[in-house]
Amino acid sequence: MPDIGISLGVPIVARKGVSSDVLRHQGQRGGHDRALNPALDPARGSSTTVEASGRPGRHLEDTVKLPPLQPTRRSSRSVQTQRFVCLYLLSAMSSSYTDSFAAPFFAHVDASTAQYISELGEAVSIPSVSSDLPNHLQDIIRMMEWTKAYIERLGGECSLLPNPVKVDDEGNELPPILLAAFHADESPETKKTVCCYAHLDVQPASKEDGWDSDPFVLTEKDDKLYGRGATDDKGPALSWLWAIQAHRKLQVGLPVNVKLMFEGMEESGSVGMFEAIRMLSKEGEFLSDVDFFCISDNYWIGQTKPCLTYGLRGMAAFSVSVQCCEQDLHSGVMGGSVHEAMTDMVHLMSSLVDSSGKILVPGIMDDVLPVTPEESALYDTIEFDCEEYKKDNKVKTVSDKLVHDNKKDLLMARWRYPSLSLHGIEGAFSGAGTKTVIPAKVIGKFSIRLVPDQNPATIEKLVTQHLNTKFASLNSPNKMEVKLQHGARAWLSDPKHPNFEAAARATEKVYGLLPDYTREGGSIPITSAFEEATKMNVCLLPVGACDDMAHSQNEKYNKRNLVNGIKVLGIYLHELAKLTGPKPSACRCAELTDEELMEPGAFMRGFKCKCIM
Amino acid sequence: MPDIGISLGVPIVARKGVSSDVLRHQGQRGGHDRALNPALDPARGSSTTVEASGRPGRHLEDTVKLPPLQPTRRSSRSVQTQRFVCLYLLSAMSSSYTDSFAAPFFAHVDASTAQYISELGEAVSIPSVSSDLPNHLQDIIRMMEWTKAYIERLGGECSLLPNPVKVDDEGNELPPILLAAFHADESPETKKTVCCYAHLDVQPASKEDGWDSDPFVLTEKDDKLYGRGATDDKGPALSWLWAIQAHRKLQVGLPVNVKLMFEGMEESGSVGMFEAIRMLSKEGEFLSDVDFFCISDNYWIGQTKPCLTYGLRGMAAFSVSVQCCEQDLHSGVMGGSVHEAMTDMVHLMSSLVDSSGKILVPGIMDDVLPVTPEESALYDTIEFDCEEYKKDNKVKTVSDKLVHDNKKDLLMARWRYPSLSLHGIEGAFSGAGTKTVIPAKVIGKFSIRLVPDQNPATIEKLVTQHLNTKFASLNSPNKMEVKLQHGARAWLSDPKHPNFEAAARATEKVYGLLPDYTREGGSIPITSAFEEATKMNVCLLPVGACDDMAHSQNEKYNKRNLVNGIKVLGIYLHELAKLTGPKPSACRCAELTDEELMEPGAFMRGFKCKCIM
Repeated sequence: MPDIGISLGVPIVARKGVSSDVLRHQGQRGGHDRALNPALDPARGSSTTVEASGRPGRHLEDTVKLPPLQPTRRSSRSVQTQRFVCLYLLSAMSSSYTDSFAAPFFAHVDASTAQYISELGEAVSIPSVSSDLPNHLQDIIRMMEWTKAYIERLGGECSLLPNPVKVDDEGNELPPILLAAFHADESPETKKTVCCYAHLDVQPASKEDGWDSDPFVLTEKDDKLYGRGATDDKGPALSWLWAIQAHRKLQVGLPVNVKLMFEGMEESGSVGMFEAIRMLSKEGEFLSDVDFFCISDNYWIGQTKPCLTYGLRGMAAFSVSVQCCEQDLHSGVMGGSVHEAMTDMVHLMSSLVDSSGKILVPGIMDDVLPVTPEESALYDTIEFDCEEYKKDNKVKTVSDKLVHDNKKDLLMARWRYPSLSLHGIEGAFSGAGTKTVIPAKVIGKFSIRLVPDQNPATIEKLVTQHLNTKFASLNSPNKMEVKLQHGARAWLSDPKHPNFEAAARATEKVYGLLPDYTREGGSIPITSAFEEATKMNVCLLPVGACDDMAHSQNEKYNKRNLVNGIKVLGIYLHELAKLTGPKPSACRCAELTDEELMEPGAFMRGFKCKCIM
Repeated sequence: MPDIGISLGVPIVARKGVSSDVLRHQGQRGGHDRALNPALDPARGSSTTVEASGRPGRHLEDTVKLPPLQPTRRSSRSVQTQRFVCLYLLSAMSSSYTDSFAAPFFAHVDASTAQYISELGEAVSIPSVSSDLPNHLQDIIRMMEWTKAYIERLGGECSLLPNPVKVDDEGNELPPILLAAFHADESPETKKTVCCYAHLDVQPASKEDGWDSDPFVLTEKDDKLYGRGATDDKGPALSWLWAIQAHRKLQVGLPVNVKLMFEGMEESGSVGMFEAIRMLSKEGEFLSDVDFFCISDNYWIGQTKPCLTYGLRGMAAFSVSVQCCEQDLHSGVMGGSVHEAMTDMVHLMSSLVDSSGKILVPGIMDDVLPVTPEESALYDTIEFDCEEYKKDNKVKTVSDKLVHDNKKDLLMARWRYPSLSLHGIEGAFSGAGTKTVIPAKVIGKFSIRLVPDQNPATIEKLVTQHLNTKFASLNSPNKMEVKLQHGARAWLSDPKHPNFEAAARATEKVYGLLPDYTREGGSIPITSAFEEATKMNVCLLPVGACDDMAHSQNEKYNKRNLVNGIKVLGIYLHELAKLTGPKPSACRCAELTDEELMEPGAFMRGFKCKCIM
């Protein structure tokens, strides 16, 4: 097995003042003494999860206490360089355990494919649509109960946690959250614990939307399994159960403790999850002994090569409203006499971005980290085809042109540079045909995808200032207001973290090749929520292909991905078990001071404590 | 009674080569020989009514045959000057008939107010909502039958014409059109005929929309009658019947033949009316002997002073679509990689108009007629208060600022200059909250209100050219398309036409003051449809006040306007009867040639024939 660090072209550099022996010895330790030093972490319990995502190890709240950005940025490059340094070398380990398990495990999974398809069909047949709670709450609960029964048949402990938010904004009762635990085969208290997150709810779907088959009847065609939720996220969710089931059938004990946290509101904002995560991360609660998180709810960037995802963009979603009067007016009767809100709106919106995608807000790029050679190198081996991308996104038949025509620039534009999209206008006429209206109040919606080190609060200031200046230049008497509706920092993890290493080795065992290391343009807020609340590492381990059409018509899950996904998740547990050293969640050493956190390299997520200094 | 021409500051000018004796003698004649010269009017039957509105006497089709606009415009000023010249002096007439009728008529109307309110209440209680045919077609038919029975009780002939379009786009059966005739008391074949248009359908309404009372229960409060349709247009429609009823009760014969054409689809595009009007205008049909039209379906521009309306703006409604791909994309996943359609859209839309309302399309003002001193003078006496206007339209509490702060400029901006309004964007996100979407295809909707001599076809060319140029400058690979969805020329009549003179005198008899001469910013397509099909003059004679809230919550009709409206409409019939000369509809002289039509002054509507040369 090649050294992944070397294979990625990243030299392993020993940190100043720390011998590699020490590093090796203390490799798996981390966390911080939450019991002894609760006051040292002001973020815990009070930080909102939507804004809690940040650069590894740095919290939104930290920026308040830290010196202004400029001094921080002075060291950005060295921080960036260190980010890809493997601080934690894998300790010497025996690979026989995994290897002896792999062959019968793979054979069992291959032989059980028909069972998996049948059971996935059962799950898909339950229309657990979370965006329509009045009609589908009971379906979500049914899906939870179905899963709970399955877990209990496998010998797991399972309970349904009442949703901490209880009811949504419309007063609809919210579904519970499934919590389950499977113990490692021997002395589980000394074994590491992984928590696997997934969701059991789905996007709406109906045959009338353009599905070729009933979306709630799993339909096999050309080795693809079509159905709502097949890939997002019932297939991956059940794969954890099938991997455990294989251990039972093969009479092999679990090498690590496995916890499951499956929700039923992911497609509708994960209502209640953020509160639950904060609650369950407290000392002695469900998540307090979790050492690693694994989420399988995103996708490969191609159709054939697996990947691990180490970064997500953040978000600053804005609304800008312009009001000219209190009631809509008739454009014939009043047209020419009033300063129309829509006119101001399109002038404001057009001042934000140009047709090449360049964001026109002054200062917007100031905090974007420069690309280092190490980061750049990560893109070289990624399997990605711009032409395929154009086809997949149906750009091919329309403009047939992307903003960049080479892989690296295009992926960087999606993953590591900010982008601004104009989503639409609320309050204006949006129907078909013609309506001769002067809208009284229009609300433009746009969002900027943020990257490290962009801070939503800073972005809000820049955007507001820019729109105020632009609006002043219009000389309009109308009322204008800019609002940050939702802010979340980008998430960036360390692809060399042992959690990622374990996932990479598992992938290699199944697919015979190392995964690509990818980032994503979108946000998965739950990722940061787990990380913020527990300080433990989260690995995004997608098992579905880029063309699975999650959220769209004809969502599918390839049979190949189903089978190999179960194998990867199963082997991942064994690769985690190989990691030596103490449980990260059990680290009780002193937390780093603010000054120490300023040290280059100190921000490695999950190791914000003195034991690694 | 002062001479209205002089009171308006418009000198009466005899036309070159035509003695005032001839004018006086031939004053009431007009029309053209439709039976003899059908080929001379290529517009008849083939012109679509939505595009048929135009400058008096010039058809959309005529522009094809006429020399280019420039030579025409050379004489614009003189045409404009002539427009306000009274070609048709009222012949000597006896005023005793009207005067002896007026006193008992007024007394009768005053004494019958309770009856009118009661009957208006019956009509309002029938929810004849034309936008919801599946639920309300029978109500519209019931309203028609109710009216037909009323007419027949008054001795009128009445029939319900099956709607010529039969079914709407959704396959719903369309309501019939009510046609009625009341003969003048003696030798009706020699008497002039007026056709009064109104509509019996209403806008939707429900208490939940914010009405203070049940919209379908006429509710009196502070001398105001609240109810859907009270002012739009059931009150005015029934006023014609009540005026005739008064004649019956007072045993006074009708001085002119009165025809009624009441429709049931006005609030939903007057479906079927345009076809019916064309059909009924043929020789020997219902409208073929109509000499004057009167429409009471618009409103005063203030709350106290009556007006006559002689102009309506036209319309060029556009859509501009931009498409970047064939499916909506996720702004997180794809943001930064595609040229987004919405970005192009706001740049295109912002290139059309600035925040002061100035239209930025080059050449757009080229065909707008200059303001003559005569036209300008018409605005001086108009009762209009900019502050009231701001309050009525709820601008006061928001921007508290109009595009112009003086009456004349403001009214001209609404009535005689074009304006461009951006209505909204189809295909973009328009809901509340945030949706992180990159819309695949967005369709911007905007319209330009046209004024004489703007031609929708020319405007289409200018707008398309401008947007093409702008789009090219964006360097976008996306697909863009501009479409004229709907084009209609402006309508401009001659406020000195005898039909208007009769309406003015009636107004003066009732209110003791001459009406304002107003135009409207919107379109009433039926106006041009009557004029185009029959070549007869149409007078818009509003009886409701500006604050009647037609189409809105708490629509009302002032008791004062109800009573005075009946009086004005009744006296108007007698003022029409005073006009001497032949019936305009009976003129059989040769139609003007194209060259003759080029003569300044030859465009006076309704007199497009040799007998006035």
